[in-house]
Amino acid sequence: MKKILFTLLTLTVFTLSSWAEDGHRLWLPAQKSQTAHVSTNAQSATIDLAKQELTDYFAGTKATLLIDPALTDDEGFTINGNEDSVVVRARRDIGLLYGAYDVLRRQAIQGNMNHVEQHPRFRLRMLNHWDNLDGSIERGYAGESIFEWFHLDEALLHQYARANASIGINGSVLNNVNASPKMLTREYLDEVRKIADLLRPYGIRVYLSINFATPMVLGDTRTADPKNKRVRQWWKRKAKEIYSIIPDFGGFLVKANSEGQPGPGDYHRTHAEGANMLADALAPFNGTVIWRCFVYGANHKGEDRVKQAVSEFKPLDGKFRENVILQTKNGPLDFQPREPYSPVFDQISETPNMAELQITQEYTGQSHHLVYLGPMWNEFFQYVEPEWLAGISGVANIGKDRNWCGHHFSQANWYAFGRLAWDPSLSSEDIAKEWLGQTFSTDENFVYMMSTIMEESRETCVDYMMPLGLHHIFKFDHHYGPEPDGFKAEYPLEWCPVYYHQADANGIGFDRSSKGTDAVSQYREPYASMYDKLETCPENLLLWFHHVPWTYQMKDGSTLWESLQYHYNQGVINVETYHNIWHNKMRHYVDEQRWREVDDRLEDQVQNAREWRDVCLKYFGGFANKKQ
Amino acid sequence: MKKILFTLLTLTVFTLSSWAEDGHRLWLPAQKSQTAHVSTNAQSATIDLAKQELTDYFAGTKATLLIDPALTDDEGFTINGNEDSVVVRARRDIGLLYGAYDVLRRQAIQGNMNHVEQHPRFRLRMLNHWDNLDGSIERGYAGESIFEWFHLDEALLHQYARANASIGINGSVLNNVNASPKMLTREYLDEVRKIADLLRPYGIRVYLSINFATPMVLGDTRTADPKNKRVRQWWKRKAKEIYSIIPDFGGFLVKANSEGQPGPGDYHRTHAEGANMLADALAPFNGTVIWRCFVYGANHKGEDRVKQAVSEFKPLDGKFRENVILQTKNGPLDFQPREPYSPVFDQISETPNMAELQITQEYTGQSHHLVYLGPMWNEFFQYVEPEWLAGISGVANIGKDRNWCGHHFSQANWYAFGRLAWDPSLSSEDIAKEWLGQTFSTDENFVYMMSTIMEESRETCVDYMMPLGLHHIFKFDHHYGPEPDGFKAEYPLEWCPVYYHQADANGIGFDRSSKGTDAVSQYREPYASMYDKLETCPENLLLWFHHVPWTYQMKDGSTLWESLQYHYNQGVINVETYHNIWHNKMRHYVDEQRWREVDDRLEDQVQNAREWRDVCLKYFGGFANKKQ
Repeated sequence: MKKILFTLLTLTVFTLSSWAEDGHRLWLPAQKSQTAHVSTNAQSATIDLAKQELTDYFAGTKATLLIDPALTDDEGFTINGNEDSVVVRARRDIGLLYGAYDVLRRQAIQGNMNHVEQHPRFRLRMLNHWDNLDGSIERGYAGESIFEWFHLDEALLHQYARANASIGINGSVLNNVNASPKMLTREYLDEVRKIADLLRPYGIRVYLSINFATPMVLGDTRTADPKNKRVRQWWKRKAKEIYSIIPDFGGFLVKANSEGQPGPGDYHRTHAEGANMLADALAPFNGTVIWRCFVYGANHKGEDRVKQAVSEFKPLDGKFRENVILQTKNGPLDFQPREPYSPVFDQISETPNMAELQITQEYTGQSHHLVYLGPMWNEFFQYVEPEWLAGISGVANIGKDRNWCGHHFSQANWYAFGRLAWDPSLSSEDIAKEWLGQTFSTDENFVYMMSTIMEESRETCVDYMMPLGLHHIFKFDHHYGPEPDGFKAEYPLEWCPVYYHQADANGIGFDRSSKGTDAVSQYREPYASMYDKLETCPENLLLWFHHVPWTYQMKDGSTLWESLQYHYNQGVINVETYHNIWHNKMRHYVDEQRWREVDDRLEDQVQNAREWRDVCLKYFGGFANKKQ
Repeated sequence: MKKILFTLLTLTVFTLSSWAEDGHRLWLPAQKSQTAHVSTNAQSATIDLAKQELTDYFAGTKATLLIDPALTDDEGFTINGNEDSVVVRARRDIGLLYGAYDVLRRQAIQGNMNHVEQHPRFRLRMLNHWDNLDGSIERGYAGESIFEWFHLDEALLHQYARANASIGINGSVLNNVNASPKMLTREYLDEVRKIADLLRPYGIRVYLSINFATPMVLGDTRTADPKNKRVRQWWKRKAKEIYSIIPDFGGFLVKANSEGQPGPGDYHRTHAEGANMLADALAPFNGTVIWRCFVYGANHKGEDRVKQAVSEFKPLDGKFRENVILQTKNGPLDFQPREPYSPVFDQISETPNMAELQITQEYTGQSHHLVYLGPMWNEFFQYVEPEWLAGISGVANIGKDRNWCGHHFSQANWYAFGRLAWDPSLSSEDIAKEWLGQTFSTDENFVYMMSTIMEESRETCVDYMMPLGLHHIFKFDHHYGPEPDGFKAEYPLEWCPVYYHQADANGIGFDRSSKGTDAVSQYREPYASMYDKLETCPENLLLWFHHVPWTYQMKDGSTLWESLQYHYNQGVINVETYHNIWHNKMRHYVDEQRWREVDDRLEDQVQNAREWRDVCLKYFGGFANKKQ
């Protein structure tokens, strides 16, 4: 009898500890406790959500949610109490919901729950979905779009909203910046309304990407010229229609005159003229136009691509309506594993700016590589002050895969994006630890080891893909593997790897110094001078700014070619270590399913890292060894 | 003209920085400065050496060497001054020589030269050469013996003596412990005298290993029985003869009744009876008998080999003459990459004890692996207090190879041995930094990177060879590669790998707990209990003390088999990193020749580490995976 009891006990423990997880719950609480009595002093759909979360998951006995008009911040909150009894105060109901999630986060990682005061650093904390209306996702690596038009999965969208609210995201652009004109038709707008209604209690406003030529393509006008009266009227009517359906609609995100998209330039109008037309249409309803600075090739053909955004937008600075925000990628090129910050943030000072970060790992191993982007974003904020920014957008990595992001560890990038949009002074390491504790295990060994790996993983990716400032030597189109010899006569030169690395028998790298394209001159001091001089240019950006001889002596005395070999090799060795640790040491901290899935992906990562190393060292060695 | 001048300057700089080095100068100064005036208040051959070193290499203007009878320590010294002017004081001339070398060491690494006071921690700081009379060296991996009998290379022996004096070594056993009886013949003793005369000014006394059966083998007696009167007389006469030639002769080192060597056991006499006979012969001349405890197989056949030394010697403790010292290897087996300390150090308290460390890398990759043994010796001194020891012996790694040790980094083990014999409280890391600075470069990056690698290298070796307490699974005889399936019916069982790892479908490891051979009981508390219990046994000695199921859960939650895989893989990955760093990043800190030679050996090490991993994981996997 004793033996049977023991067996039963063992089985129970076993069942609990090896609870099958598929990653769908993300970082949200795993087990309902339902031990707490939750009271409030106000009522709303949002407060109901907050109340429900604490009722279900707060493991103490008492929680109180209080609207407190004495507080000043519309989205902030305070927490006072302890793990047994806690009081959340906020000026508005969304603050109470954010506070409730913060209580649960602190509970999960045994954090402090007293004298907590939180305010978001940015007013706009947005996801940009590059989701097409047919369900496909540009640069999506986790299945099809969660926005299933005309067949919306409401339960899934609630989970999506809940996850975002739990990290403070308050805006969502539902469709790809390469936007279909159909997005603004009534049938789609009725669907958008459903999504907006669903997201509203979670504090999330809906935005749409628009195609600048929409009125013309839909056949309502003969042109899309922003100076054309009919066109301007069409947008005003359309804005009115949208706000009649969705009164708190956020606004438009616009990719114009970029990579084949239509824009005001088609009619010899400026970006300002185009943006202002839309801004005028949205202004009566307090809507916002978010206008992307990611443009190249149209008006500045032949100019160094990384200079074109400043060339294009700096003369327009100050000419935009008050409800226009410019949105600029963190770096001047295109979401490479490492770029210098975009000088747009130095040169545009009269117009509000938003930073566009890429959560989806287009250039960092997609959903096959464990690459934690927190350190990259920490690095960005070393150069770009939060005060200069009106908000943060992140290109989402979310799809219909059961685990949302394809790779379990890609969830950490979604999480870290939200946390940094709330407070960009958080360290990526602390965020990693928070996330690991909630998502996998609070075991000290596990959290220490895996947070160390996560912290290092981005530099490792740089090492095995494009160390020392190399950039854009990916295989064409899919951007996963290496293609350093890539050149296609039929493609724009700015899409070709050989254009970016400029390797020859003398050396390697793109000369952007004052003797080259002078891209350095777009930076504020001390960066302009620092990047300009070979001796002071940070070595991790060396080949971004300079064409350097293979025998150039690095700060540690090795030659450039030796240093390149070192980084490629070290990147591979590091990934091998990650896989070794995960495969042999982490299994028992993690449920079988997620362990296996991460393990499989780490194997892929090792293979791909080796491919990067082998292909790049062979190709570059052909030049470097010729010289020696 | 300007151009030519520039070219000449460039050439000069180039020549200096890439000065061809072959490793022969060891850690000793590279460039004579000859700027200092050196004065003394006494004269001797030793003081002449000290004076010459400072005259040649002290880069200041003034150095003073003072015999100071007020000082109390025969070998210690003080240093006062600075890099320009320095005063060394000592009670005896050898202290002045040690002080002079310390000044040069401090000069090389920019160390402090004021208020320095140094005393050696051990009276005996000895090298044991396992050199045979035919020039071969047992477990030597750096060419033939530097002791070329009847053709002595005096210049080479001066360099040898100088190097040893520079790190405080004061004794040298010239020949193999598996000793030839010929060693004590007059013709050899005349040669030994030449060596002794040559080493004397450097403060180094000469010792000889003796064959216990010498009088019988040479045909002077019919037995070697230590109770036999003629035998006893023979040894007395021989001692007298030796001291008439070499008045400061150190004494005998004896390997008796061990691995086929003759000894008192051949006549049913104890080790004490054998040692005391020799001690009585040497006593009139203040000579010492150093008697090795490395015995197994003779009187204790069938007993766990690691227990036999205590079984054999504990009953004899207190029965040895005052001029007998027992010499015991650091661990109870045989110089494995990791062993627990030898319990002889716990159990022998009435007889002086010396620790025998192995500088030559018999079981740690020989002269093909960069394995720095400083951390192993630091570990030993965590368990064995210096107060318990009369001295330290190190089995030398010196041969006629131009760089002395085969591998440039093996010089560091010679150096570290000397420094630790002088002061066992020094950290291996500080010693590594000292050595790197004097031997290669004081560049901060170089020293940081390479000292980090050196510090880690021993644990890495343990990982790729025999992690978690595995031991003695080397290929037979040469002890370089792996042979976990090793079994030879014609060999003693204690030489066979399968006997040591005991792997089967249930698990792996040698049960030395109280349920097994009870070797744990030979340890003092708390170690006896700690090692006995599976739960408290340190994981890095787990399989030394326990037979453990493959599915055993390690402290981090992984299974034993997973942990084993982790360590083997990590060992290889680490060596790959060392090679990568050296190959690509260290080239310009180091002259071409040494860089190339170390690089070649690191390649060998990578290959061998992979062989260890692949062979062991395949072999053990055959058991482990069967069980799962």
